Amino acid sequence: MTSTLPVFTQRHLLGIEPLSRPEIEALLDLADEAVAISRQIEKKRSTLRGRTQINLFFEASTRTQSSFELAGKRLGADVMNMAVAASSVKKGETLIDTAMTLNAMRPDILVVRHHAAGAVSLLARKVDCSVINAGDGAHEHPTQALLDALTIRRNLGRIEGLTVAICGDILHSRVARSNILLLGKLGARVRVVGPSTLLPAGVEAMGVEVFRDMRAGLADADVVMMLRLQRERMAGAFVPSAKEYFRFFGLDQEKLSRARPGALVMHPGPMNRGVEIDTAVADGAQSLIREQVEMGVAVRMAVLEALARNLPNA
Amino acid sequence: MTSTLPVFTQRHLLGIEPLSRPEIEALLDLADEAVAISRQIEKKRSTLRGRTQINLFFEASTRTQSSFELAGKRLGADVMNMAVAASSVKKGETLIDTAMTLNAMRPDILVVRHHAAGAVSLLARKVDCSVINAGDGAHEHPTQALLDALTIRRNLGRIEGLTVAICGDILHSRVARSNILLLGKLGARVRVVGPSTLLPAGVEAMGVEVFRDMRAGLADADVVMMLRLQRERMAGAFVPSAKEYFRFFGLDQEKLSRARPGALVMHPGPMNRGVEIDTAVADGAQSLIREQVEMGVAVRMAVLEALARNLPNA
Amino acid sequence: MTSTLPVFTQRHLLGIEPLSRPEIEALLDLADEAVAISRQIEKKRSTLRGRTQINLFFEASTRTQSSFELAGKRLGADVMNMAVAASSVKKGETLIDTAMTLNAMRPDILVVRHHAAGAVSLLARKVDCSVINAGDGAHEHPTQALLDALTIRRNLGRIEGLTVAICGDILHSRVARSNILLLGKLGARVRVVGPSTLLPAGVEAMGVEVFRDMRAGLADADVVMMLRLQRERMAGAFVPSAKEYFRFFGLDQEKLSRARPGALVMHPGPMNRGVEIDTAVADGAQSLIREQVEMGVAVRMAVLEALARNLPNA
Repeated sequence: MTSTLPVFTQRHLLGIEPLSRPEIEALLDLADEAVAISRQIEKKRSTLRGRTQINLFFEASTRTQSSFELAGKRLGADVMNMAVAASSVKKGETLIDTAMTLNAMRPDILVVRHHAAGAVSLLARKVDCSVINAGDGAHEHPTQALLDALTIRRNLGRIEGLTVAICGDILHSRVARSNILLLGKLGARVRVVGPSTLLPAGVEAMGVEVFRDMRAGLADADVVMMLRLQRERMAGAFVPSAKEYFRFFGLDQEKLSRARPGALVMHPGPMNRGVEIDTAVADGAQSLIREQVEMGVAVRMAVLEALARNLPNA
Repeated sequence: MTSTLPVFTQRHLLGIEPLSRPEIEALLDLADEAVAISRQIEKKRSTLRGRTQINLFFEASTRTQSSFELAGKRLGADVMNMAVAASSVKKGETLIDTAMTLNAMRPDILVVRHHAAGAVSLLARKVDCSVINAGDGAHEHPTQALLDALTIRRNLGRIEGLTVAICGDILHSRVARSNILLLGKLGARVRVVGPSTLLPAGVEAMGVEVFRDMRAGLADADVVMMLRLQRERMAGAFVPSAKEYFRFFGLDQEKLSRARPGALVMHPGPMNRGVEIDTAVADGAQSLIREQVEMGVAVRMAVLEALARNLPNA
Repeated sequence: MTSTLPVFTQRHLLGIEPLSRPEIEALLDLADEAVAISRQIEKKRSTLRGRTQINLFFEASTRTQSSFELAGKRLGADVMNMAVAASSVKKGETLIDTAMTLNAMRPDILVVRHHAAGAVSLLARKVDCSVINAGDGAHEHPTQALLDALTIRRNLGRIEGLTVAICGDILHSRVARSNILLLGKLGARVRVVGPSTLLPAGVEAMGVEVFRDMRAGLADADVVMMLRLQRERMAGAFVPSAKEYFRFFGLDQEKLSRARPGALVMHPGPMNRGVEIDTAVADGAQSLIREQVEMGVAVRMAVLEALARNLPNA
């Protein structure tokens, strides 16, 4: 990839919060080039040749880990996966010990997912290499927000001025948080839509409009972003039944008809079909769910390349 | 590898059934070249450089997955393994969602194993890339049949006219099914040998001779193919004791003596020693069990290369 | 790496025991070159290009397996990991069947960890490729001893004549055994320090001094090597409480003050903080624990390269 990235001077990608609008736009421009690479038969570059990328996942995630693995391999990096559930954590080693051990092996980039908010930033302060946050608790998931923005920009030509409705389990969602931050920085109007029990206290302070009624929340929206209902994170108190949740907050054709005609439908996956989204909508003409996955690899290639350019001696 | 494959025009390898005799022979010729590559010190080619191969295993299999992984790496592909038991299936994602997600990451080849017959063909209809069936339920396991044929052809010079006895748990065996199809297409006389309870109803319709007595079934056979007794697939009803099974259907020197002198002994592995095969026979001079494993890597290299040649723009 | 290794003529690395002092020193010299490679941005070499390295781990180990994986990839090998717990062993395949199956896939190097002492040597007698012992029961862990020696040599300039105290659970430790052998061959004075219950019978015969009191054992030592308390290997009989163990045999500043000023503190990891070592010491100025990890990759690169040079046709 040949774009210059003078504006992107970060050492890590820990979240959307620290990024400026020009930095985000530079990453999206670079990602557009990466899309073209993956669509070729010979989809290998030597940008990261001789670099070591370690994917350190304290929480399992097929989709995100695979996306980072392919992104690194297509750029020529040596990629190593570490699923930490099945490892030394059992022997009583701490997060920081694990990170410092890997750091001593001289990786260039650590891609980290962890169940605790803040764990990735903590780790980044300890190591010498670049760190990419691949999701930390309910805090941030910056590459998801970047891939969502790339998908929107490629389909509607811009982000500025669009109305985006983020719907469902906002409370447990790092995806929602990163998207609210990114879409705000790029000038979209952001709405969050969900039941009171799944809206974080004080979410209005993030500059979003809040809707507890889905039809009202979708009215004239350009983009409808559905979230996965994370029942595994709901301890006892309030676990909605799938059937009732779908009735009020599941996206079906009728609710979608309230949005702007041809509004984009998105979902970060994996989907609970019939819970937060109807199969007809998920597989329908307005759905960009597969394209989001493709953009995921491209955005991760862009982030890897951008960080690699900022490494010492690079 | 330099052979031309004008006759092989498939986009997928879903089974032996759709293949013609010239297509099978072209794959075996290509595999002969691949054997030579893996016997060299520098066993890396750039045939698949820049291509992405994903091994998607819904059923664990060390042996088959490793064989595909090495085959892809030796041809220069970027190979990614996905063990789906430990992944998003848990979160309620369907087979097709998983496949479509991977497809969106723009792989060139998906190697798929699944516990349900027909699942791999279903998946192939949904994706843009080439699909290789690495075993689907009791349906087919085409690369196993190809490696068995390669092993026989390299040892006896031909398949045509040979008598091959396939022995044991025919009922649960995709290996048996693919071998019956392939050996038939190449002109061998195929026998199946086993207890009535482990013979599928109507197996005679596949053009094989059926024997319920092992000594009769082995008489004058050129090749004796043993199958693994798949007790994990036998629900309650009839689970033979290892001891009794071995007495009637386990291959020992005495039973083997009924076959042609020097008859080839084969087994797809992993073996239950002392159940379907005696250790002395498994490790004896007539056994080709290790050679089958070597041929496995070669056949998979051949299939990967043949499919890659048929990809768009290749 | 350009060093010549005329003295190293082994086909396998099964332990420290069969190595001569010049062989050990040649490996350490080669490892010094490997350290420099991993400290560069472009840390890829083509030394093992086209070679196949299989990491066959019958016992999980994040740290050691990762170290071998990175070492192989940085030298350009195709590396394949096999965690055998999750594999065919379940289907009743034996150690030797697994090894022979892999051998038939024509690897150049097998890196093997196994819970039984002697298993790796047994396996090496059966296969055609080079075998590296990555830890076999309580027998040997030769690359750990080599990385420890490299760390000491780089910090103190020599091994000869140093006093090294190996402390803790000597009984269950292959690390201790390999270190005692290596340090002895290189002319260090070795002490073992631990409670009677964790000292193997007849350890004096290995040429070490035995101390049951930690302060006496550390007196004037140049190097203090702590071992992980392997409670998972202690069946019932004697499992010390963490608190009591720490009081008598945990390394804290007070006990460390008995050693020579500035004595090196080492630990093979993963650490039980507060059990065998105090956090302040583990993270203190005398600790080389992170450097040991870095040396681990370098030593494994050196061993891989040295063995590759001795392969037929290389």
